[in-house]
Amino acid sequence: MTRDELMKEAIGLSVRNVAEGGGPFGAVIARDGEIIATGVNRVTADNDPTAHAEVSAIRAAARKLGTFDLSGCEIYASCEPCPMCLGAIYWARLDRLFYGGTSQDAESAGFGDAFIYGELALKPEERALPSENIMRKEAQEAFLAWNGKEDRIKY
Amino acid sequence: MTRDELMKEAIGLSVRNVAEGGGPFGAVIARDGEIIATGVNRVTADNDPTAHAEVSAIRAAARKLGTFDLSGCEIYASCEPCPMCLGAIYWARLDRLFYGGTSQDAESAGFGDAFIYGELALKPEERALPSENIMRKEAQEAFLAWNGKEDRIKY
Repeated sequence: MTRDELMKEAIGLSVRNVAEGGGPFGAVIARDGEIIATGVNRVTADNDPTAHAEVSAIRAAARKLGTFDLSGCEIYASCEPCPMCLGAIYWARLDRLFYGGTSQDAESAGFGDAFIYGELALKPEERALPSENIMRKEAQEAFLAWNGKEDRIKY
Repeated sequence: MTRDELMKEAIGLSVRNVAEGGGPFGAVIARDGEIIATGVNRVTADNDPTAHAEVSAIRAAARKLGTFDLSGCEIYASCEPCPMCLGAIYWARLDRLFYGGTSQDAESAGFGDAFIYGELALKPEERALPSENIMRKEAQEAFLAWNGKEDRIKY
């Protein structure tokens, strides 16, 4: 499939998902022009705040391929990913992102993507979300255990 | 439970998770001092790039409470959340964040949190991840359907 066909598929998912009670977002993960997995926004339908289209597609693709490393795959998102989804795209090591609608389009439809992008760019103490760093010293224990573990899988 | 006890619980989860083959991260979601749900990093163990401790705890708490809106709850993370997890915290509408280790601590242990924070602050065309906006006009169809839907659940 061409990149336009793959994007058309992501857009089709986003449109159908509205009719099916989900949010207006769809995503397709493809490798070499073949669809590996798809995802739609099921936040309210499934009571899962993390069930955005891109996160859902990434989870499905990783499950299907049996790896947490989606190098070699591309993601087609019907709309520009929010910070959570863009973070997930980096962690999944996807090669490339194509997006249809923009963050402004999402904001116009009532989704707070731009607000969250703004928050992430601030220092913790400047954010609207009250954040506090406590027990930092005690929290090192896991990193010490991690660094001492010979067979740890880095990612 | 006090906030120090809740953080101690998150740290304990992070330490035990290393022994159990997961990453060095744990998180606890609490309401009025009672633990609602917990999560640990299972990225490599479960082949799920999104299975960070905070995302896992949010998904578990939302499932338990039967809602995508975790207002009234707080999250205790053994380490400062990465952008994906911080985005998830905003979408879940958690009231407050306590974190133990910092992003620098995570970076020192080999996790790329700071890199991803830097990437998100850039415009799409400036990022290391090749990103392209295509078919923006076609992608509006889902938003039009969404805005025309009387019974849509806003979030």
